[in-house]
Order: sequence, then structure tokens, then C-alpha cells
Amino acid sequence: MSVNSLGRLLRVTTWGESHGPAIGAVVDGCPPGLALSEADIQPWLDRRRPGQSRHTTQRREPDAVRILSGTFEGKTTGTPISLMIENVDARSKDYAGIAGAYRPGHADLVYDAKYGVRDWRGGGRSSARETAARVAAGAIARLVVPDVRISGYVVELGGDAIDRAGFDPAAIDANPFFCPDPAAAERWERLLDAARKDGNSLGAVVECVASGVPAGWGAPVYGKLDADLAAAMVSINAVKGVEIGDGFAAARASGRENADEMRQGADGRPRFLANHSGGVIGGIATGQDVIVRVAFKPTSSISSPLATVEREGSETEIRTTGRHDPCVAIRGAPVVEAMMALVLADQALLHRAQCGERR
Amino acid sequence: MSVNSLGRLLRVTTWGESHGPAIGAVVDGCPPGLALSEADIQPWLDRRRPGQSRHTTQRREPDAVRILSGTFEGKTTGTPISLMIENVDARSKDYAGIAGAYRPGHADLVYDAKYGVRDWRGGGRSSARETAARVAAGAIARLVVPDVRISGYVVELGGDAIDRAGFDPAAIDANPFFCPDPAAAERWERLLDAARKDGNSLGAVVECVASGVPAGWGAPVYGKLDADLAAAMVSINAVKGVEIGDGFAAARASGRENADEMRQGADGRPRFLANHSGGVIGGIATGQDVIVRVAFKPTSSISSPLATVEREGSETEIRTTGRHDPCVAIRGAPVVEAMMALVLADQALLHRAQCGERR
Amino acid sequence: MSVNSLGRLLRVTTWGESHGPAIGAVVDGCPPGLALSEADIQPWLDRRRPGQSRHTTQRREPDAVRILSGTFEGKTTGTPISLMIENVDARSKDYAGIAGAYRPGHADLVYDAKYGVRDWRGGGRSSARETAARVAAGAIARLVVPDVRISGYVVELGGDAIDRAGFDPAAIDANPFFCPDPAAAERWERLLDAARKDGNSLGAVVECVASGVPAGWGAPVYGKLDADLAAAMVSINAVKGVEIGDGFAAARASGRENADEMRQGADGRPRFLANHSGGVIGGIATGQDVIVRVAFKPTSSISSPLATVEREGSETEIRTTGRHDPCVAIRGAPVVEAMMALVLADQALLHRAQCGERR
Amino acid sequence: MSVNSLGRLLRVTTWGESHGPAIGAVVDGCPPGLALSEADIQPWLDRRRPGQSRHTTQRREPDAVRILSGTFEGKTTGTPISLMIENVDARSKDYAGIAGAYRPGHADLVYDAKYGVRDWRGGGRSSARETAARVAAGAIARLVVPDVRISGYVVELGGDAIDRAGFDPAAIDANPFFCPDPAAAERWERLLDAARKDGNSLGAVVECVASGVPAGWGAPVYGKLDADLAAAMVSINAVKGVEIGDGFAAARASGRENADEMRQGADGRPRFLANHSGGVIGGIATGQDVIVRVAFKPTSSISSPLATVEREGSETEIRTTGRHDPCVAIRGAPVVEAMMALVLADQALLHRAQCGERR
Repeated sequence: MSVNSLGRLLRVTTWGESHGPAIGAVVDGCPPGLALSEADIQPWLDRRRPGQSRHTTQRREPDAVRILSGTFEGKTTGTPISLMIENVDARSKDYAGIAGAYRPGHADLVYDAKYGVRDWRGGGRSSARETAARVAAGAIARLVVPDVRISGYVVELGGDAIDRAGFDPAAIDANPFFCPDPAAAERWERLLDAARKDGNSLGAVVECVASGVPAGWGAPVYGKLDADLAAAMVSINAVKGVEIGDGFAAARASGRENADEMRQGADGRPRFLANHSGGVIGGIATGQDVIVRVAFKPTSSISSPLATVEREGSETEIRTTGRHDPCVAIRGAPVVEAMMALVLADQALLHRAQCGERR
Repeated sequence: MSVNSLGRLLRVTTWGESHGPAIGAVVDGCPPGLALSEADIQPWLDRRRPGQSRHTTQRREPDAVRILSGTFEGKTTGTPISLMIENVDARSKDYAGIAGAYRPGHADLVYDAKYGVRDWRGGGRSSARETAARVAAGAIARLVVPDVRISGYVVELGGDAIDRAGFDPAAIDANPFFCPDPAAAERWERLLDAARKDGNSLGAVVECVASGVPAGWGAPVYGKLDADLAAAMVSINAVKGVEIGDGFAAARASGRENADEMRQGADGRPRFLANHSGGVIGGIATGQDVIVRVAFKPTSSISSPLATVEREGSETEIRTTGRHDPCVAIRGAPVVEAMMALVLADQALLHRAQCGERR
Repeated sequence: MSVNSLGRLLRVTTWGESHGPAIGAVVDGCPPGLALSEADIQPWLDRRRPGQSRHTTQRREPDAVRILSGTFEGKTTGTPISLMIENVDARSKDYAGIAGAYRPGHADLVYDAKYGVRDWRGGGRSSARETAARVAAGAIARLVVPDVRISGYVVELGGDAIDRAGFDPAAIDANPFFCPDPAAAERWERLLDAARKDGNSLGAVVECVASGVPAGWGAPVYGKLDADLAAAMVSINAVKGVEIGDGFAAARASGRENADEMRQGADGRPRFLANHSGGVIGGIATGQDVIVRVAFKPTSSISSPLATVEREGSETEIRTTGRHDPCVAIRGAPVVEAMMALVLADQALLHRAQCGERR
Repeated sequence: MSVNSLGRLLRVTTWGESHGPAIGAVVDGCPPGLALSEADIQPWLDRRRPGQSRHTTQRREPDAVRILSGTFEGKTTGTPISLMIENVDARSKDYAGIAGAYRPGHADLVYDAKYGVRDWRGGGRSSARETAARVAAGAIARLVVPDVRISGYVVELGGDAIDRAGFDPAAIDANPFFCPDPAAAERWERLLDAARKDGNSLGAVVECVASGVPAGWGAPVYGKLDADLAAAMVSINAVKGVEIGDGFAAARASGRENADEMRQGADGRPRFLANHSGGVIGGIATGQDVIVRVAFKPTSSISSPLATVEREGSETEIRTTGRHDPCVAIRGAPVVEAMMALVLADQALLHRAQCGERR
């Protein structure tokens, strides 16, 4: 029942603040015998790592992960895997000037309302830094479901959507935006430069597709695969919406338009003629691609002045001058992938528990 | 870890199939001493009850709830509250004709893939009938958070949105659509009649607002209030998307546009100048209205022929002739309210556990 | 996190008071495809049923179980199984005379302290009647682990222990005490008659052995098989102690005496030369018999006068005149078996989840 | 559902192997605003620390704890508290000689059966070293229930019990055995010296008393305070039995003898004339002292030769030559205290969640 834990059987507990000595995750329930070393995790962290272009925060974190437990001779033992990432480049003094005022759109106000604590150094526990622990844990989850391929990318930035006709999987890692459409990536560069110069920020939409998810993963009613995905995605900082398959567009379609009709597949299994459902019906995977779209709000930390109040009540204006991502959604793409991996791995184990391996 | 349970401290477990003898819920963790009788639950069930207009399924269920445990002399005792609703008007033979074929958009295919069981009578556990148990449990949740007011209504049907300028709370219960805009309600009547005659169905969007949620409810990282809401909403049948506050529109706004600036309120607490966040930041309530929007796909059961396959593999066409809602989202409005109540009540108890009552 | 639930993957939630309309259990997580009807559960309930000899309470309850969900065509579907047992012979007026006073050794005082509720009718939720729901759920658990054989019996009553040399499995169900030693059963008959006539009651020790538990079930550290068993047994009414294997005697043995040495078995697996550990080491099954012993205190309800206080504070004497078991431990034997089955089935699924079926 | 986690609301997850780089715990759910630094934890670790007399293992571990998250300016923030203790004096090569053979009474056999992994360095995850993480977490739990006083001590060693008439609380920390009876402590010194010289080991019984637990903490049926205590205690390495209050002796008493009669207390609340129940009835605290007794088996690692088998099947003899406690129960006393604190703190929060602070 820890609110800092995710998952039922592959259970991840993360800890750490952006300006403390370290952050980390404990991954419990991992099957034994999987080959695992830091080298299996680091590349995913590197993808998410800040400071790799001018479009992400200039905080320089090596994000080097250490495995402190749960492996022996290069394999998982079945016991908890403790992961730790040291915080190297925290500059708490950047925040001293804003220690008294609540930053609009930030969690400092509500943490204070809840806990009576005003930790003014960075975002504390609510910082996007926490997502590094998710990505590290997600790397382990990928090993639990090796036949699943997961791809996350940005499909819309600042209201400018990609052209689906120009979708090129190879482009995703070839630009700083995880953008599958090279033409859009060029436009976004200009959009984001303009926003940054203007002391502003932009939101974006991340799409994530998981292929190779077998029909049957998932569960009814409250433990639905899509309900788990929705919770996992909305738990990411700055996320304000999530869609499965056609999402809100499905609410505008008719029943006939929205039907995923079926024919007999060459393998004897049903072959779908469409995937409006996004690979999940009744909370259970259909065997088609699992498709999720996630809306990130624009970064709340902007250098334009905003009206706010001090802790003790007086009114003031605030300009947030720390180092921030002008569009958090960009680095959100690897995080969305990690959450997808964590949810699928957990549901895979849950399915095996109840239904065994034969099915 | 039951997949048929929801909530951490106010924990609801639902059971039952649409064509079994009964459905029900066990509500554990309810505070003691709350006045509770069937009369506190029945009105909410009546609101959701089918067969009240031609726009919902014609299955006639009295949906009379019985409290089997957990109360004494008209008050909750703190022990599990067992609720039971008998199924009265199940007509399994309506389904006999489609027993062999999988209905597109329905869970019968995936239940079979998962469990190896083909229960052809109605939707079994995946039927919207299960939501009656949610509404009953939600009525108890409302008693746990008596200062919270919850209002759910349909804001868009078949792609036709309400006019926010014409929003009239009194209209919501005065038409068969839970529609706050009387002009839209008239249009929807025609839209839905046309769809039904055409053997088709429509989707819709439900919005739900909770007022009176104190700043501080909610929790960081994975137990976020909005993550819980997202999971709860997506767990409802036919839901394909969820938004908190501005949702996907936030992804199209700039940081300046999306900022909920603050001034000093008359009560000494921060007063917000906007509510783009939908009352939740960092997973914790800000004290503003909590706002959620939920996308329901069109009913999958339509009387138009759809291509599908039989269980044993042969291809066929299916027309679903049982009694169905032409737009499930309509009766979804009371269900969305119930899920809002359940999530808020659970987070209220969770907050009291960790932070006590003073804060 | 429901306190009225047990188990992680095979999750049982029980509800109901001794003097309400019914009691019941919801069993979630049961694997699909298991043959299940009321006839698989009723015999276990009948074994526990009161009123079968003068040595148990004279309350006459048929304890007829109904399955309300989770099966189709005689097999489990994988969805929640709702079980209900009506209360037929509750005589609340028997208790009216003691409504104001707290019965020593009973939970009425502490329920009042906790919940502020004084339900004077029988034991409410703390009544041994709740254990009928456990036995019903346990019957389902047995189907999940069909290769495990579970035997519970009374080894000591009122301080009079059986003679291990006279242990006869066939005797267990041939006397009213679940006593494997016919000579002891005769003595106990006289002991219990004397106690009852004297307005007194007796305690007893139940032993339970599970054979066929494969090496590997269980888990480290907090989810240990023996920790689960300890919690499950102590959760039974009137239980004040539990031992695994040699239990407290192990604390009096030396390391040499207590060692379960090993030789090579004919099947290539280790063969143990002793079973001091009771089949569990490090929280994980060794493959030997799992052995638990459970201490039941004497029934608290006795007709001898005891000093107590009224709810409003005045001192009084109480003689409990309802219908009660003179030795609750006797009917505890089937309950202990049920708890053993529930814990093993849950750990079996947990093991399959993490380690798969091959191991 | 992590098997390496304990507690519902104050939730502790421990990680780490005896011969890895470090061990640790993540404590989630701690109330905010509690004064906490390493200095609040270290004294409890020091009490448990090995190598302080010849009666415990000679492994020299400073057991210096670091707090990596969850505090700010010396107070808890309400976010996860990450604790880390480095392993300094692990000598894995001590174990190289026994890498192939299973040590009787040890978990290496069952871990191999479960996980297919044979980590021959020390006890891995099943080592008593894991209990340092419990003691560290327990120190935080004590801060959550500051009005509760917890005292653990050894009441019997090698079958030699203390004289209750000579019980002196001041003696407990004045001898190497946490023994409240100085005369017994002297005898035990000789007993243990003799066992060690003989290549043997001894078991013991630890008793733990918690005073100041208010009536009402605890919960019915499966979340009982005593069920939680039983699980927590049996989860400690080498524990084979647990008693609440009179425990197994209650099974030998009559109902009259076992009754905790009540009179009116000076404070208007019931005053008990005895405490056979050990402060828990029906799973809920009565307000009397909570009393638990825990049986530890003798250390399995002894230098006398024992019959065993190699991993690949051949028979052999084993003498365990690493550094071990000749009686693990001694250092078990601080661990039992920690588990008592963790269970009580969790139940305190659970009670506050459901019943509020007034009651």
C-alpha cells in the first residue's frame, strides 16, 4: 500500500529527492535467472538523461546506476534489486531566491498543504528527477517480457502534430525530440527555440506502442491492463491525460466505425481488421499492438513573471530561474516507455500466477 | 492484490455476472458510526437503473440493494459492508444465437483467450451490469466524505458538444442524458433515435466535478490522486480516455497560458486565478474543484452486421440482438460519480492515516 | 489492504456477523477451469458445523453454502467466487441480558473501544461463526493445490495430550474431537463433560500437517510461508500461539539435536533424516511435511460468574448463557485445515508467478 | 504485495545480501514532521551489532546507517525514507569450502529449489544480517508511536529459564544476553561457552512487552494485531514459534482460570485483574501490556560435522566454519523489539485512518 510503489508482483518502490544525495528504486518480485548488470540499465538512463541538447535542462547528471543487491554472477536471484543513482549536479542555491513563494503549477504548494513541509530545493520528491528511477526499473521490466517491443515517441508538440504519412521509426532516435517525423522535428526545433527565448514553455503528446503482447494479459474490472496503464502514465509528472487506442476520438465515432471486425488469421487465430481499441478490450490484451497516448502539460517552471503568494501570505511575482526542460514531454518519452514495460511485466506475472504458462 | 478490488483503505470488492443470480460488493474499511441504510444507496442505483427511457437498455432490473452486514441499529460498525443486488431480468436465451461467435469490441474473445472460458450469456463479468455494484459502493463512499459535492454529466454525445454558456446544473437530472445544456439534450434525442434506428450506437464524454476537496488529499508519485482517478475511470466498461483539468488541451497550451496563478484569498489561503490543473498538482489536491473528463466509446453491441469469427475458427457475421444501451456513456455518468467518490474517500482516509486530522 | 481479506493472489474477503442475515466470502484470483460446485464445499462445512455432538454449541445452523458467482457450467471462470451462508438459528434475545456488560475474554469491549459500537447480539464479527466463511473458502483453496493433503486434528485437550504411539489417522473423524488417539478421545469426553457441568470450559492444541508441498513454495523475509501460516492461524478466534515444526521445543534443543541432516534420496533429491523444521526453512518449503501446531484458549463464554463492568462503568458479575462450544478448539481443527489450504494455495500461485511452472 | 515488504501504511521494504555491497530499507508512509536523524537510529543498531562479546558472531560490522531521503532540516517530510548500511567485513572466501554442499537448517537448499540459484557467500538474503535493516526501520517506527515503551529480553536459553521473581529491568542491558535475571545471565555464560567449545549451539526464547498501547489499536479477523505480530515475529530468521499472552499455557487452562476479569478503574475505564490475553482480544488491543514470546531455534551453523548432500547429489559431511552467533536469539531481542514497533506503528496509522483521532 505504499504510495511510492507501483505494481503487484513486479513491485517497484522509488525513493529520493532531486537535491538529496541520491535517488533509487527497489525492484521486488523479479524472476530469477535473468541476465542483468548495470550495462542493461544504463543505456535507457542515457536516453532520458538531461543536458544532451539545448532543448532539455542543462543540469549535468551522469545518472550512473549501481545495482546494490539482487544479482549474483550476473543473474537475478529472485530477491530485491536495489538500484541507486547519485545526484551529482544539484544546485540548491539556484532555488534560494524562490524559497518563500509557491511556483504556480508546481507541487510545492500542495506538499506544504499536505505535509506542512516546504522543501524549497528543486522539486524535492515531485521533481522530474524521480523519473530516472522509473527508467532504471523499467529496464529490468523489459527483461521480464523479452518478446515485447516498446516504442515511445512524441507525436505532437506545442499543438503541432506529426504527419502520420511521414512516420519513420528510424527517425525517433535521430533528433532531440524522439520525433518519428523528420519534418516535424525541424519545425519543433524552431517552436521550442522561440518559446525558450520568450521565457515560455510548451506541452506535447507522447504515444507509446507495445508489440508482441499476447492475448490474455490483463484482468477484469479494477486490475485492467488499460486501467493500470492509465494510472502509470498519469503518475508521471506533468501528465494531464491519457488515451487507449482511439481514446477521445472513439467517443466521437459510431459503433460501426469503431468496431474492430475480425477475420480468420493464417495462424488460426482471429485477425483484426482494425485496432480502434488500442489492443485492450475489457481490460485484457487482444494480441494487437497496445497503444497509449499521453498528454504532458507545458513545463510549469518558466522565466516569465507569474502572480503568486509567499508562504506567509503576501502576494508576489515569481520567475523560475533554475535549469529546466522547456518541454518536459520530450524526456517523457523514455519514461512512458518505462511505465509501459513495468505495467506489462507486472500483468505478465499476474497472468502466469492465475492462468499458468500453457495458456 | 485482488484485481476485483479497488481502493487501499476504503476497499471495495465487487463480484457477480450479468446473468448469474446476483451481483454485489463488499466495502471494507468504512469508518464506524455513519448513518447507513438501504435508503442511502437506493436513490443512486435508481439514477443509474436501466429501462427508464428508450435511450437505455430495456432490461428491467429493479436493482434493489440489500445490506447483509456491517451495520447495527442504522449505523456502520466499521466491519465489512456486504451489498447484494439480485439479477431479475436476465434473458440468457437472447444470447444463445451468438454463443459461438465473438462480438467485435466485446470482452468475450479476450476472456476466452485468458481463461479458456466462453460464457456466452450476456457479458458475464465484463457486463455494464457490474457497474451497479460500483454505484452502490460509491453511495457509501459519499458518506465518508460528506463535505464533498460530486456532479457528473455528459458534455458531448456523438461528437456534439454542449454549449458551456448554456450550462444549467438543474438541467442535468431533467433529461434522459444527464445533460446540463437543454438545447443539446434535444439534439441528442434526435441523434440517438437516428442511431438506434440505423442499428448503430454512439459514444460520449462524461465530465465530473468534485467540489469541497481540501488541499492536501492525494499522495506523491504512484498513489497520486489523479493517477487513482485515471485508473478508476478507465476501469469502467467502454472507457478509452481520461483527462484531468485541461487534459489534452494543456498539451497544446504554453506554460504561460497554462499557469494557475495565485493571489491572496480572503481566508488567508491562496486563491487561484484559473484551474487548468483540474484541482490536482503533483498528485495532491489544490483545494480547487477536481475535474475529470472521461471518453466512452460507442456501445459495441449493435444490430448492424459485423464481420467476426466463431470460436472454432470459421468466419461469420454477427448482429447483436440483446437489449443494450445505444450509448453506454449516458448511464456512465452516475458510475463516474461513484468512482470519483470512491477514490476521494480512499484518499481522505489515507491522508488522515499519515498526516492526522489537524492538517 | 482490507483487514478482512487474506492472501495475495488467492484473495479471500469475508463478511458478516453472527446475528445478521448471512455471512459470506468472496474468493478472487482462483485459477479458471477448476470443477467447482456447492458439493465441493458443503462437506467441509458439515465437518465444522455446530450441534453435531453435545461437545459443541447447540446452535443449529444448516450452513448451506450458495455459490453466487464465478462459475459457469460447473467450472471456475477465473472471476470472483461469491459464497453466501444464511444465518438461520440466531437467537439474539439470548444476549439481551448481557447487552450492557462486557464479557471477559470477549471482543465486545475492544470493538467498543475501537469503533464506539456495542453490538450485543452474539459476537458480531468476532464470533466463531465467521470461521464458516473460512472453511468454505478453504474448500476452494484445496482445489487449487490438489496434490497437497491436509490433515488437522486435536493433539491436546485441557492439558491432556494424545499418545503419539497410538496415532491412528482413521480415528480422527470417528470421534467428536478430531482426535487421532481413541484412548485420549475417551478421556476427553469425560473431561469435557465435567467442565461443562462445572460451568467451565477447556482449551486445546490443534496440529495440522500438509503433505505433498513441493520444495520452493514460500518466499523470503516477510512473505515467508511460515510467517503467512502464523498470521493465518493467529487470525482464528481464540488462538494464542503457533508453532512451526518443533516450535518452542526447538528453542530448548541444541544445534546438533535440531539439525535436519540430509542423505541422497532414491529420486536424486535430498532426503531428510528428520523434520525438526516442520517443512519450512528460510520461509520456503523444503519438500517435507509442513507441520503447524496451534494453541486455542478455553472458550471465554462460561456460565460461571465472572467479575466485569457495564458499558457505563458500574461493576457487575456476568454468566454467559448463550449457546457456546465448551472447547472452541474442537471445531477449530477444520478451520486450521482451511487456513493451511488458503496459505498454501496463495503461495503456490505466488511461486508460479515469479518462478514459472518448470521449477 | 512485495514479499520483501512489511506493513500496510508504515511500509518497510528491505533489500540486500549479507555479502553484497550494502543492505538497506525504504520506509514509506511515515508521518511528516517527526525529528529524525541518523542519531535516532544508530543506538538501536549498535545494540544489535555483532562482535560485542564472545557470545555473538565475530564479524565486525560498524553498521553505520545513512539516511538518503525523506528528511529535510532534521525532520521527516512524509516521503520515503531510504536507509543504507554498508557491508564492511564480509569474508566470502570463508564460504568457498562449503559452496557445493547444502548446510542443514539453512536456506541455501530451498533458495536453490525455488530460484535455481546457489549463492554460496554467507546466507545471502536469508542471513541474519538482513535484520539490521529491520532494526533501522524499527527505530523510525518508535518515533511514530512515541508513547509506547517496548522492552525485549531473553527469558530462556538452552532450556534454562529465568526466575521471574528475580526480574530486574535494569539488568537487561547490563549483560551480553539481554537477560533480566542476573543469576540466569551467569549460568547462560557457562552454558554458551560450553556449547561453543563443543561445536554446538543453543536456542532461546525472547519475550517482548509493549506498554502504553491504547485500547482500540488492531483490527478484526485477518488484520488482527496479534496476527500481524505473529507474522512479523515468525518472519525473523530462526523463529519457530510465537505466543501471545499466556500462549500455549492458555490451552492448558480452564475458562475460569484464563478469564481476565474486570473492575472499574480509577480513571473510569475498565481495570483488568489479570492479563492472560497478553493485551490483545479479538485482534484488538485491550489497553493492557501487549506481550509476545518468540522461540528461536539454535543456530544452524555449527562446527560439528553434519550429514548433507552436494548440489550435484553426492553425500558428504559439513562443518560450518564461518563466523556465527552460537545463539542467534540473543541478538534477536533487539530485532523482536523492532518488529513490535513496526507492527504497532502500522496499526496505529491504520486505526487513525478508519476511526480518526478522537477515539
